[in-house]
Amino acid sequence: VTSTLAPLDPAKTTTVTTLRVRFAETDLMGIAHHASYLVYFEAARVEWLRRRGVTYADWAHKGIHVAVVEVNVRYKAPARFDDLLAIETALAELRAVSMRFVYVIRRGDTIVAEGMTRLGCIDDEQKLVHITDAMREVLVAGEQTGTPTASP
Amino acid sequence: VTSTLAPLDPAKTTTVTTLRVRFAETDLMGIAHHASYLVYFEAARVEWLRRRGVTYADWAHKGIHVAVVEVNVRYKAPARFDDLLAIETALAELRAVSMRFVYVIRRGDTIVAEGMTRLGCIDDEQKLVHITDAMREVLVAGEQTGTPTASP
Amino acid sequence: VTSTLAPLDPAKTTTVTTLRVRFAETDLMGIAHHASYLVYFEAARVEWLRRRGVTYADWAHKGIHVAVVEVNVRYKAPARFDDLLAIETALAELRAVSMRFVYVIRRGDTIVAEGMTRLGCIDDEQKLVHITDAMREVLVAGEQTGTPTASP
Amino acid sequence: VTSTLAPLDPAKTTTVTTLRVRFAETDLMGIAHHASYLVYFEAARVEWLRRRGVTYADWAHKGIHVAVVEVNVRYKAPARFDDLLAIETALAELRAVSMRFVYVIRRGDTIVAEGMTRLGCIDDEQKLVHITDAMREVLVAGEQTGTPTASP
Repeated sequence: VTSTLAPLDPAKTTTVTTLRVRFAETDLMGIAHHASYLVYFEAARVEWLRRRGVTYADWAHKGIHVAVVEVNVRYKAPARFDDLLAIETALAELRAVSMRFVYVIRRGDTIVAEGMTRLGCIDDEQKLVHITDAMREVLVAGEQTGTPTASP
Repeated sequence: VTSTLAPLDPAKTTTVTTLRVRFAETDLMGIAHHASYLVYFEAARVEWLRRRGVTYADWAHKGIHVAVVEVNVRYKAPARFDDLLAIETALAELRAVSMRFVYVIRRGDTIVAEGMTRLGCIDDEQKLVHITDAMREVLVAGEQTGTPTASP
Repeated sequence: VTSTLAPLDPAKTTTVTTLRVRFAETDLMGIAHHASYLVYFEAARVEWLRRRGVTYADWAHKGIHVAVVEVNVRYKAPARFDDLLAIETALAELRAVSMRFVYVIRRGDTIVAEGMTRLGCIDDEQKLVHITDAMREVLVAGEQTGTPTASP
Repeated sequence: VTSTLAPLDPAKTTTVTTLRVRFAETDLMGIAHHASYLVYFEAARVEWLRRRGVTYADWAHKGIHVAVVEVNVRYKAPARFDDLLAIETALAELRAVSMRFVYVIRRGDTIVAEGMTRLGCIDDEQKLVHITDAMREVLVAGEQTGTPTASP
């Protein structure tokens, strides 16, 4: 099972969003707890889709769900309470039933973390289903013009 | 709308469970984050029900859901990573469509926090529904014999 | 122990911030988990201070910490994934060693939740300390002009 | 930088602990949110150390901290609210300044998830430091006899 698509264009499949580290997300070492980064990736992915005119709810209503099947995070520098983080999210791979996003989290010029999440498309019965052509078009089309460039 | 039940018997409506403060639950002040206590109350409430032979799943399958409608917590002393906490959970009020649980969290003899949660019974359409006689019987009956006294 | 201050001016002590419900904050009932609201209150409080030129870090560096000593939340309507919530935060009481914030969370015209948090000022040894005149001035002064009116 | 130790003995470096999926850890898909697994791994790792007579606090008091530098999780089957999960935790690699733990989470015979975390030893100034011989002895020694085999 491989993608039949042409190579992805990073200029179109990359989006940068921002968020602040919340107090509740820190731990006793005074830094953002390492599990928080998966929540940051997820929030960034939701914004990535919104910039392309899609909400998770749209897909869910059509019976299409996107489940996380693998994650990886490499922690490079601690993020602290109230840090303003920029999350660069890119669709890196688009296959028959799954896709892979990669992420770089930065605070200014400092790389805080890098990671990836692989997601599988499933139906209401949690069976893997093909990513439809309509979904693919949206995923490779790039940000819509007129989309706000700031979070939340 | 008031309860038609006789007064509740604390000896029957009280259960003590234990849990440890997780690293992820601490914040940069080195203590369990204050929102974690609502999660502790909830975990204790689930165990309270289990000791009476009920799982949330049982009720959910019958279309009965229990929604939190109010919470209150008074923080008395900080809880730290790896602290073993004892949570005393008591059903304090049982009305037509709602119930109130009260909690005391202790580390040894120290009271760490006190709180209460009020819960309303709702159906699948999120409408308030009466607590059935069958539910009431379970709620006032006390722990079943042979129930393990340790968590989880 | 009571405040010697004149009554608080709601026009000055109220700030509205916004945030989106994250996927990770939902629970199996499909709504924002009730513990998430304390995290929302906290994030709103941090922004409330920022609009007045203060960061928690500023105070922490001076050895002043603000600890949550009591919380209350009344849940009025469920908040769902991706809902854009407006959080109205107001300083409602300012006493010798503590202060009380009240919150209203709305989605459009719907009130989602109301709540309050009481905070005590403590030093590095976790002893209650008086709120200084310099802190009071900031707390009652109102938003600084030129402060951005949007979150994150 | 490589380990100078003899190969690790899985019989000694493996520990199984259990925990229940909390309601707060589920998401709107009705399953344990994928970020929760990192919290489960962490809780299991703390128990792994406790079975060997060590608490994080012990090391922290000596100025030795263990920071997560990389994580990986592969999700195999959903975990649901109240599921009793068994987490098999094994020290898989012990190097000069870092160590790697691997995890298998099971519900009965079903593998729910597999993962790994790599941790680096740092001092109070967040500089990488060598794992001392005293630490190594503990890490390879196996569970102490008389250690309770149940969580928490």
